[in-house]
Amino acid sequence: MRKTAVRIAIIGAGSATFSAGIVRDLCVCGGLEGSHVVFMDIDERRLDLINRLGEKIARELDVKLFFSKTTDRREALKGADFVINTVQVKAEELEGHDWVERQRSTAERHGYYRGIRLHNLTQLHFMLELACDIKEICPDAWLLQSSNPVFEGCTLMHRAVGIKIIGLCHGHYGYRHVAQVLGLDEADVTAQMTGFNHWIWMSDFRYQGKDAYPLLDKWIIEKAEAYWADDTRRYSDVQMSKGAIHQYRLFGLMPIGDTPRMVGWWYHTDLETKKKWFGSHGGFDSEIGWGQYLNGIAASLKRVEDAVLSNGKATDVFKPVQSGEQIVPIINALTNDVEGVYQVNIPNTGRLLDEFPKDVVVEGPGIVNGAGVFGIKARPLPVSVVVGAMIPRWREAEQLVECIRQRNLNILKLLLLGDARSRSLDQVESLLDEWLSDPHNTAMANYFK
Amino acid sequence: MRKTAVRIAIIGAGSATFSAGIVRDLCVCGGLEGSHVVFMDIDERRLDLINRLGEKIARELDVKLFFSKTTDRREALKGADFVINTVQVKAEELEGHDWVERQRSTAERHGYYRGIRLHNLTQLHFMLELACDIKEICPDAWLLQSSNPVFEGCTLMHRAVGIKIIGLCHGHYGYRHVAQVLGLDEADVTAQMTGFNHWIWMSDFRYQGKDAYPLLDKWIIEKAEAYWADDTRRYSDVQMSKGAIHQYRLFGLMPIGDTPRMVGWWYHTDLETKKKWFGSHGGFDSEIGWGQYLNGIAASLKRVEDAVLSNGKATDVFKPVQSGEQIVPIINALTNDVEGVYQVNIPNTGRLLDEFPKDVVVEGPGIVNGAGVFGIKARPLPVSVVVGAMIPRWREAEQLVECIRQRNLNILKLLLLGDARSRSLDQVESLLDEWLSDPHNTAMANYFK
Repeated sequence: MRKTAVRIAIIGAGSATFSAGIVRDLCVCGGLEGSHVVFMDIDERRLDLINRLGEKIARELDVKLFFSKTTDRREALKGADFVINTVQVKAEELEGHDWVERQRSTAERHGYYRGIRLHNLTQLHFMLELACDIKEICPDAWLLQSSNPVFEGCTLMHRAVGIKIIGLCHGHYGYRHVAQVLGLDEADVTAQMTGFNHWIWMSDFRYQGKDAYPLLDKWIIEKAEAYWADDTRRYSDVQMSKGAIHQYRLFGLMPIGDTPRMVGWWYHTDLETKKKWFGSHGGFDSEIGWGQYLNGIAASLKRVEDAVLSNGKATDVFKPVQSGEQIVPIINALTNDVEGVYQVNIPNTGRLLDEFPKDVVVEGPGIVNGAGVFGIKARPLPVSVVVGAMIPRWREAEQLVECIRQRNLNILKLLLLGDARSRSLDQVESLLDEWLSDPHNTAMANYFK
Repeated sequence: MRKTAVRIAIIGAGSATFSAGIVRDLCVCGGLEGSHVVFMDIDERRLDLINRLGEKIARELDVKLFFSKTTDRREALKGADFVINTVQVKAEELEGHDWVERQRSTAERHGYYRGIRLHNLTQLHFMLELACDIKEICPDAWLLQSSNPVFEGCTLMHRAVGIKIIGLCHGHYGYRHVAQVLGLDEADVTAQMTGFNHWIWMSDFRYQGKDAYPLLDKWIIEKAEAYWADDTRRYSDVQMSKGAIHQYRLFGLMPIGDTPRMVGWWYHTDLETKKKWFGSHGGFDSEIGWGQYLNGIAASLKRVEDAVLSNGKATDVFKPVQSGEQIVPIINALTNDVEGVYQVNIPNTGRLLDEFPKDVVVEGPGIVNGAGVFGIKARPLPVSVVVGAMIPRWREAEQLVECIRQRNLNILKLLLLGDARSRSLDQVESLLDEWLSDPHNTAMANYFK
């Protein structure tokens, strides 16, 4: 096995569980020994925590890895071969998630139940700056984009700056959950997912080589009602919810991963409607489900702290097996030419999705090897998915990307006017006014000035 | 001057004023003497009327033209070199406009103020049948598509059937009204309009060779308020309305012709809002403006009747000068190779609009001559127009076209769910149920069965 040491900068490394997963994967990967991981975050306490955890895991597994930490983003990029961006931008004096919740409340006051993803603007603004830094400081580095919005963020950074970029997500593994619920042995199941990130559709689904969609249809008729009657499932389990199956029937393909919770405003008009489609907690994004998610985040941070501070082994918590994350295997594929097929978000240069321009980032299977990443033209999406789901989502993405790229507040206004909950121009303008005059939001206010 | 006789079938010829305009233009054109005009309509009374009017006009002007009439569409197409489609489909026992109004009422009962253009489905269904007939009976004929929806209709017929097609409209002449209000001599003004039909933007505007947009900006600052204070203008005068100017500021280019009355649901939420943006009658599509429009149609039919039945000259009513319609000049250009620039709706084969697929029909300037029609790649639309206006309109068009092309009721459902007035899935489904069970609507109910 070829072994090459590389320099990996993790931007937003304070996302501790995520960073710990990268370290653990680097240890078990084999091909990247001797590599240097630079943890970067503006939260010094968390930065220190993840640095200590990284060192502890590597020491316990006896793998030679080097670690350093910095609160200076540009410093972190120096000499980087790979940059992993997992940043959730915070506002001054507000953690990322608190800032998201504050913006949600603002939008709710203006009639947008559960808010609008205004925080995506802040995220995109940051990504644009990061991409410019990469272009300047480490122009040959690959950016592995992990934080959201992956679709818009990658499109913006590709279009506006033109760095080497792969967007990554684990939503596509949702097909395994479909297989599991159908009682199919995962080893005998293959699937192809394609679309935009968080907006992917199972364009092919096979069990023992044969089309498995009929098995899904059979399950829907024979077993779905009983499945939905059991209300003990986790808030995050939307993959086989009533809503997801309704979408499958409406669009013609199964939505995978985060897709079923993102598609269709009509599943999300109020808590009652959310409950009808996603179960008693109302799904991942309801006030109930989201509260559980935030608790989960707090718990996993606690888990990292315990692993660092306890006398026990960190690898008892972070087991030394390859995680589900594709990041380290992809770094290995690019570095050591270990070819593999991954689920990637890459520019539509080869018109992987025919209907959309080349400078839009699309998600689908791709080959990664020493020469780079090469999209595989998956089975084409049916017309009903293209015109019913993909084009509307593209509209939204273009407006989000371009309002940032052009610094054009009118485009942002049009994005909000396109929201199904908007009832008047006044409503949109008053929401924007309040959002831009929020003292926590000076960065965006200045950006659009 | 070259002269070639051709055979022209006018489908829906009972649109009498329209057909009379064609006859008059044929008489004054010069190059098409000896041509045969086949009037086709299912309304025998109107058909007889227009046939007599055509003969009377030609006789008075002493131009050799042949006329015939039929209620059989396929008969009309036999040997046709040109087919002009101006059909407004009626339901059994209901005139086209009455059927439109009935469908509007249905939609209003379900919460859609001023209705949804459900009648477009019926129109598209008809166009698809007509295009198939043309392909079979007169495959070399040019279809000049005049009735609405031109954008979706031409896209559907091109994509699904593949006949030779040019969509025509006079909305682009709206730039002349802009020039007139600014006090500019029309002879010194040039303009370029591009986009989709009824969704076109003045991408270039010159007075005496120089950019005239600054003159518009000056007018807005200095004279617009006084102009809007005068409330005596016609319901149809939306070109320089407050709404149109607001759109110009929001999108960055001036919307032309029918565009300013079509863009943006937020100008049309209720009569009060319509009045605010379009004047005391609420613009063309308000209950007031539309009522005046229908009265105007009745009056122009009366005018045709009078011209036929009176002992006076028909050409006193239909003056022997070239009308504003581009149809006959284009027939002459194609037939006698008299090259000219026209405003045409043609497939995006040459990517006249880069962002959209080749099989979408776009509107813009084009050269027409003996070899055919050749789109001119106009000045590109700015990003704000593309992402703010064009992509959302394309979404709507694709859903309309494809629900017909695929006979897929789910796509129609998604189209309605994309309407800004939709509040729930139930609302959309109950509207669809009522529309499909309307005894006047058996054609569509059977189509989607």
